[in-house]
Amino acid sequence: MKVTLPALDTCESSFIPLVVLELAQDVKEETKEWLKNRIVSKKEDGGAQLLFRPLLNKYQKETLENQNLYLVGASKITLLLGAEAIGLVKECNDNTMRAFTYGTRHNFKDFDDDNNDFLTMAECQFIIKHELENLRAREEKMIPGYPQAKLYPGKSLLRRLLTSGIVIQVFPLHDNEALKKLEDSWYTRFTFKYQPLDRIRGYFGETIALYFGFLEYFTVALIPMAVIGLPYYLFVWEDYDKYVIFASFNLIWSTVILEVWKRGCASMTYRWGTLVMKRQFEEPRPGFHGVLGINPVTGREEPLYPSYKRQLRIYLVSLPFVCLCLYFSLYVMMIYFDMEAWALSLHESSGSEWTSVLLYVPSIIYAIVIEIMNRLYRYAAEFLTSWENHRLESAYQNHLILKVLVFNFLNCFASLFYIAFVLRDMKLLRQSLATLLITSQILNQIMESLLPYWLQKKHHVQVKRKVQALKADIDATLYEQVVLEKEMGTYLGTFDDYLELFLQFGYVSLFSCVYPLAAAFAVLNNFTEVNSDALKMCRVLKRPFSEPSANIGVWQLAFETMSVISVVTNCALIGMSPQVNALFPESKLDLILIVVAVEHALLALKFILAFAIPDKPRHIQMKLARLEFESLEALKRQPSENIIEEKAPFAKEAKRENQMKLMAQNLKEDSREGNKEEEA
Amino acid sequence: MKVTLPALDTCESSFIPLVVLELAQDVKEETKEWLKNRIVSKKEDGGAQLLFRPLLNKYQKETLENQNLYLVGASKITLLLGAEAIGLVKECNDNTMRAFTYGTRHNFKDFDDDNNDFLTMAECQFIIKHELENLRAREEKMIPGYPQAKLYPGKSLLRRLLTSGIVIQVFPLHDNEALKKLEDSWYTRFTFKYQPLDRIRGYFGETIALYFGFLEYFTVALIPMAVIGLPYYLFVWEDYDKYVIFASFNLIWSTVILEVWKRGCASMTYRWGTLVMKRQFEEPRPGFHGVLGINPVTGREEPLYPSYKRQLRIYLVSLPFVCLCLYFSLYVMMIYFDMEAWALSLHESSGSEWTSVLLYVPSIIYAIVIEIMNRLYRYAAEFLTSWENHRLESAYQNHLILKVLVFNFLNCFASLFYIAFVLRDMKLLRQSLATLLITSQILNQIMESLLPYWLQKKHHVQVKRKVQALKADIDATLYEQVVLEKEMGTYLGTFDDYLELFLQFGYVSLFSCVYPLAAAFAVLNNFTEVNSDALKMCRVLKRPFSEPSANIGVWQLAFETMSVISVVTNCALIGMSPQVNALFPESKLDLILIVVAVEHALLALKFILAFAIPDKPRHIQMKLARLEFESLEALKRQPSENIIEEKAPFAKEAKRENQMKLMAQNLKEDSREGNKEEEA
Repeated sequence: MKVTLPALDTCESSFIPLVVLELAQDVKEETKEWLKNRIVSKKEDGGAQLLFRPLLNKYQKETLENQNLYLVGASKITLLLGAEAIGLVKECNDNTMRAFTYGTRHNFKDFDDDNNDFLTMAECQFIIKHELENLRAREEKMIPGYPQAKLYPGKSLLRRLLTSGIVIQVFPLHDNEALKKLEDSWYTRFTFKYQPLDRIRGYFGETIALYFGFLEYFTVALIPMAVIGLPYYLFVWEDYDKYVIFASFNLIWSTVILEVWKRGCASMTYRWGTLVMKRQFEEPRPGFHGVLGINPVTGREEPLYPSYKRQLRIYLVSLPFVCLCLYFSLYVMMIYFDMEAWALSLHESSGSEWTSVLLYVPSIIYAIVIEIMNRLYRYAAEFLTSWENHRLESAYQNHLILKVLVFNFLNCFASLFYIAFVLRDMKLLRQSLATLLITSQILNQIMESLLPYWLQKKHHVQVKRKVQALKADIDATLYEQVVLEKEMGTYLGTFDDYLELFLQFGYVSLFSCVYPLAAAFAVLNNFTEVNSDALKMCRVLKRPFSEPSANIGVWQLAFETMSVISVVTNCALIGMSPQVNALFPESKLDLILIVVAVEHALLALKFILAFAIPDKPRHIQMKLARLEFESLEALKRQPSENIIEEKAPFAKEAKRENQMKLMAQNLKEDSREGNKEEEA
Repeated sequence: MKVTLPALDTCESSFIPLVVLELAQDVKEETKEWLKNRIVSKKEDGGAQLLFRPLLNKYQKETLENQNLYLVGASKITLLLGAEAIGLVKECNDNTMRAFTYGTRHNFKDFDDDNNDFLTMAECQFIIKHELENLRAREEKMIPGYPQAKLYPGKSLLRRLLTSGIVIQVFPLHDNEALKKLEDSWYTRFTFKYQPLDRIRGYFGETIALYFGFLEYFTVALIPMAVIGLPYYLFVWEDYDKYVIFASFNLIWSTVILEVWKRGCASMTYRWGTLVMKRQFEEPRPGFHGVLGINPVTGREEPLYPSYKRQLRIYLVSLPFVCLCLYFSLYVMMIYFDMEAWALSLHESSGSEWTSVLLYVPSIIYAIVIEIMNRLYRYAAEFLTSWENHRLESAYQNHLILKVLVFNFLNCFASLFYIAFVLRDMKLLRQSLATLLITSQILNQIMESLLPYWLQKKHHVQVKRKVQALKADIDATLYEQVVLEKEMGTYLGTFDDYLELFLQFGYVSLFSCVYPLAAAFAVLNNFTEVNSDALKMCRVLKRPFSEPSANIGVWQLAFETMSVISVVTNCALIGMSPQVNALFPESKLDLILIVVAVEHALLALKFILAFAIPDKPRHIQMKLARLEFESLEALKRQPSENIIEEKAPFAKEAKRENQMKLMAQNLKEDSREGNKEEEA
């Protein structure tokens, strides 16, 4: 299924379905008609200028049940203008990365008016999603046929349709041919080679490619730690000096790998164009609401929301709420330890069979309570972050991640901290660590990928049988694909995948001097994790919309914070170890002072290292500086025009629409001339 | 003395002297002629296109000794084109800050072809300095008349002239009228009001205005600490809880004030245009050397020096050298303490008068050795930093400051640390602190301003008498002014002023819980420091060339690091205090653990605070984002031109020269038309 997008061609023959829109079963004809109109009509008339077609023709409908599936596509020119609107950055003929504009399209590498490979399919689908989401209400007071679904000027139609249940889902279609190729180079053949990150990015977008890139990088970076940790386990080394060396190496190493990742990430996203892409100038995320006004930066009309109100909500509501939840979670943990102690004392005093079963009860109750708390908290966090009303999707994600992260960190590690520093039972700590690490890894891989894959396969067979039983006069392949994919699970973003890695990093680094084997387990797990995650993405879940991103966002901060905390925990653990204590038999005071001094030195070293390693490789810095220099030079050359525009931001919009009309006109003439030449 | 710069007028009648060039007494006529030619000739011919005149006419020379002083000025158009070349940012009519270009000059606020107040005198002098420094050798192999003064294409002429002693100094002239006004609003009337920072900036440039701004801000910010510290001294509070509260307040307060300064500084430098000014695109500093090549960012021809070589020099030579010096300095301190102990024991054992004198000997020797070491180290640091070959003046300054700072920090505070943490003598610590703080403050003010001011005044009277004894047929005012100013001391940059503040901040914050009165002394000192520094700038020293800067550079980092170190020291001091120790009579262990925990919590709070307070106020962020958005939009609109230019960076230079010719042409015509209209 090659994406072919003939210019300005809206006839159905050349229609390439990119995105599927599923309506509710009972949607009124009136609403369908209105929606179709809004999607198809021109930009000037407030439409999205996309192509729209039911999956099944009218006469097919009578025999088939899926009458509410629609396909969305777009003409080539709509896609190119959309690429300009979202600020897509592409490589030019002179190997620099520049924001794509329709007017300068011939300066871009691989661009050709006859060629359709310029935009990747993921990019096309992202553009369509962007166009659909930015379809905004004009005069409508409600969705036709649904008086309860209120609208106001500027409200995103798609969002209202989704919240009122008229549109059930919107998802991009897989491209089976490209998917097969991707799978072959990615995970189906078990060889030790790097992942095809550029291909993953082309198919799934930057956010997912960055996750797989980080997973791979992190795994490779853990190998030295795993290798150095192995002999500690094999030869049961217990000398304190060896532990000190191991822990120090780990701490410095983790700082270095996190800093070096930033550099690698910058190189990668520069190549992909997202490092240069200025997303803060984009239109706000669909859930953002506010009073319609003029954005003071871009001069575009969009909802505005004062930042101090958001700050107030964050600091006066969200922050206290999170603190309260953390306190509650700690409280629950203390109850658990009390229950455990009580069960143990009961078992010891009675010694019967019945009470030995009782020993497991607290753990089970605690596990269930934690799970419930996690879920409730997640809902609350999503609600709060949404209520904070962030303008950009990335800001929303970062605030959500931060909230959930802190809570998960506490739930996962609080009991280990308790065992380590209050009970001071290193054997129990090592045992708990091993149990937690290994069971969570095995469970995760089964629950996340293998089980859904098996279920998915069964479902696939059923659908195939059903489709074969039907009349053969419909496009069975496409029908089958759409019906299959619409039932697949939805990928909820990289959050859970990163969280898994983050907790793993915690197990590896926080207590690395107690359990050096953790890194080896993590490496082993990650080698299979790459494959099971790849399987999940390709075969188990719906294809996700691609999402441009320039880095791993708040996760970088989270991993760095974890590595700072691990300096503190490791120093404390080494200071508490009996071997070290034996060295200072009379004076515990000196021991503690030395440990604290070493800890401070390590922390200082970490910060100096982080400061001394530049975040971007020099060649990327140069390219970014060059771009900035050119921009400023360009601005110098035409400030008079800008100043006029500034006073009349609406004029700009009007001008842009005129430009689009003009371009369309030009393209029409171009293609006519092309036809004439062919005729001649 | 108003700066009036008639357009394209090179005749002497309208010549306004801005900068003075002093040649050596015995410079050959051939060299003078060549230098004059290079300074006066047109840009196209490799000149600086400035105005150049001897201070005295030929017939005056015979009677006066100062025959080697030359005045440099510039025509209005040279200054405006120079302002464009250095990337000066000015306010536009629509209140945004934009890089000035000659072509769009009429969009700028207060610009008028007949008005000469658009550029401040400090800016004009900076432009002249820039033009002089960027006068580079073309075909010359040596300076005419001085075969030993070698030149190579691209070498800065002025720098070679200075290093070979042909040019003795270049300095900007004071503007007595403006200086009088500035003084009146600044320090001559003792009233409690804010300093006229905008005026200071207009007269002395941004770097010096920022220093005075920081000094004032810092003083005001210290007042709460001084007020809270006073009762501790007055009522001799010794309760540990009060000290803990005081120290915690200080630590949080110092974080907050440093973060808030960044915001205030950004607001100020946005108003001054230096926040937006992109200095990394400037031509390299005069001392920079390398192979001539094309700068990959700007496309200009300039010396290039690979960054990895600089890194190697920094990490393999400078860093080990600095560490060695620090070690040596510590070693000297240990010898001092040994000598002190030896002298004390000698005195105690003999008890004679003679040995009581001996008690002072170690301190005196140590003070002298420290002073010698400081000076030697300063030379070494300057040599090393210059050898590291930084491209930008700011990078050079930052690396130099960092080197000198670390050494000075150790020299100043190592003995205090030793007293506090090794000897654990709090009384001695308090006493040493008070002595060091107060004597250093008093000595500084006398040595820095008052003594030179008195010497200066005496010299002034002498010169006046001499001038009055001369024939009256020369421009006595200007002659007197130049002769006076050329003998004034040179301002060596803000380094020593900031260093004084930095060490003061150390005395105040590092041991704040031992000596709460320090803040009060610091506030008192700074109130007079403002005035004595202002006096020094206005009356004692030569006027310095203005230097655009967007922030206080590496000093921000230095102050922040100091406030982190002070968390550690204060926690340790509180932990060591007898009152706190008395609370934990049996378990020192618990005490230390609690202190360490509190310290970590405070450090974490500091980092969170620094993270949560944005570095720039929101309205500045918005304006910067708007500028970036406009630049990118401007770039989008004309990438084809850029791409052509990129392939031929020389074409751009040529084009620019053409533009300049064209502008000059236009201006000539404009003025002619103006004349015609006046005639009509």
